[in-house]
Order: sequence, then C-alpha cells, then structure tokens
Amino acid sequence: MQQALLEAKKAFQKDEVPVGAIVVMQDQIIGKGYNQVELLQDATAHAEIIALTSAFQFIGGKYLPEATLYVTVEPCLMCAGALYWSKIGKIIYGAADEKNGFKKHCPHSPFHPKTIIEQGLLAMDCANLMKDFFKLKR
Amino acid sequence: MQQALLEAKKAFQKDEVPVGAIVVMQDQIIGKGYNQVELLQDATAHAEIIALTSAFQFIGGKYLPEATLYVTVEPCLMCAGALYWSKIGKIIYGAADEKNGFKKHCPHSPFHPKTIIEQGLLAMDCANLMKDFFKLKR
Repeated sequence: MQQALLEAKKAFQKDEVPVGAIVVMQDQIIGKGYNQVELLQDATAHAEIIALTSAFQFIGGKYLPEATLYVTVEPCLMCAGALYWSKIGKIIYGAADEKNGFKKHCPHSPFHPKTIIEQGLLAMDCANLMKDFFKLKR
Repeated sequence: MQQALLEAKKAFQKDEVPVGAIVVMQDQIIGKGYNQVELLQDATAHAEIIALTSAFQFIGGKYLPEATLYVTVEPCLMCAGALYWSKIGKIIYGAADEKNGFKKHCPHSPFHPKTIIEQGLLAMDCANLMKDFFKLKR
C-alpha cells in the first residue's frame, strides 16, 4: 500500500484527485497507475483501470486470479466492474469513499465470487491525502 | 443503433462477444467502438469504454452532457460507472443483459441524475447477434 500511496502522491502533484493503485503478483509489481482524468481529459482514466490495463499487458492475459490490487481509496462502480471482469484474486483498499465508492450502489458484492476484499490498510494516510487535496481546492 | 450494430458485427467477425457502441453529438458520430477484450487481452476493452474514450478525445473534454450513447447490449457495471463519470446526456441500449447488465447489481440508477435512459431499440437484432455468437461457441 505504500507503493500505491506513492502513486497517489504523483497524482496529487499533478493536480489530480490523489488515488493510486498497484497490482502485485508473486511479490512483483506487474501494474501501477494513478488517477489521470484531468491530464487525459478522460473520465475513465482512474488509477485502478490504468493499473489493471498495465497488468494485463504485463502478463499478456485478461484475467488476474493470482494477483492482488492495492488501491488507496475504495473503488468506484466503474473500477469495481473492471475488477469483476479481471477475476482478480484479492483487492485491498485504504480509505472508504461514501460518495463514489461501489458500496453506495451495490447491496451485494459486485466482484467475482472468488475475489477476497480487505479494507482499511493505511486508511488514515490514504484518506488524509484526499482531504489535503480537497482542502486546497476549496 | 444501426451504426452500433455495424460495430457489433465487426466484433462478431473478429470472434469477440458482439457488442458495439457509438457516441453521437449534434447528429455527428464523435466516438465508436466494439468489444476488443480478446484482441487486446484487456478485460476493460468493452465497446462503450472504447467509444467513450474516443469521444473524450474528439471533444477534448471529459464530460459529454450533450451526447447520446447507443449500445447494442445493456451496459455492465463497469460501463455504467464509466457512463456515470462522463455525465452523458442520454443512453439508448438494445438488448437486455440479465447476466451481466448493471441492473443485476444496482437497485437504483447508477447514472448521473440528468442522464436519460432508453432501452429496447432494435432489441431483437441486438439480441440475435449475441445468440448467434454464443450458439457458435457451444
């Protein structure tokens, strides 16, 4: 999650909502990304999507059952859907996102039945980065 | 929707699940795409995501409130989330997708409050293309 936080800080420095993600398989980072919605002017350019796409390219396949995604903030509906399709083994996220997190829309888990979800890892650090960002925006 | 069906047929010819999408603004197609999950080995390469991303590039912006997306099949959760972020004005889809459509997961509309949804346009044609594809796969 420290690595995902480093990605989130890159987003912060580029005036993007500071969310970062990494994909790990067999103790190796196989994909990483930070939010680039403003840079690319593309509403789909979330950290998780970029990290997943780079992981798919790395392994040359479209499923990641052996991999873990670390992301600093609870995935939104779009990213939750992408994670479902990826069949990723495990998702670990830091801060909850009551406004845009998948839990707002989904009463049941939207992920693949075999996907394990954990939340709260370095949650304060992840949340504080978001708070600092939006404080500057006010 | 005829144009979206043409996109879906391109997917069919390339042995991809036949879903196609176009984005229209002021009577002009500003984005189009067909499912390329197999070709790109990327589980996020759905028709809607490709069409949205090309529309963002076309207008040089990340919101599409004046645009309409036509897609042959009910969007999945990922694509519904992407459409939410795009603030697209209108979504028109053909065939329902009880297995992977957003309605399966979302009891309430996951879209932007101003987004208008219509379903059923050329639904039989859209659904038959899917049925023909999966018949070949059996």
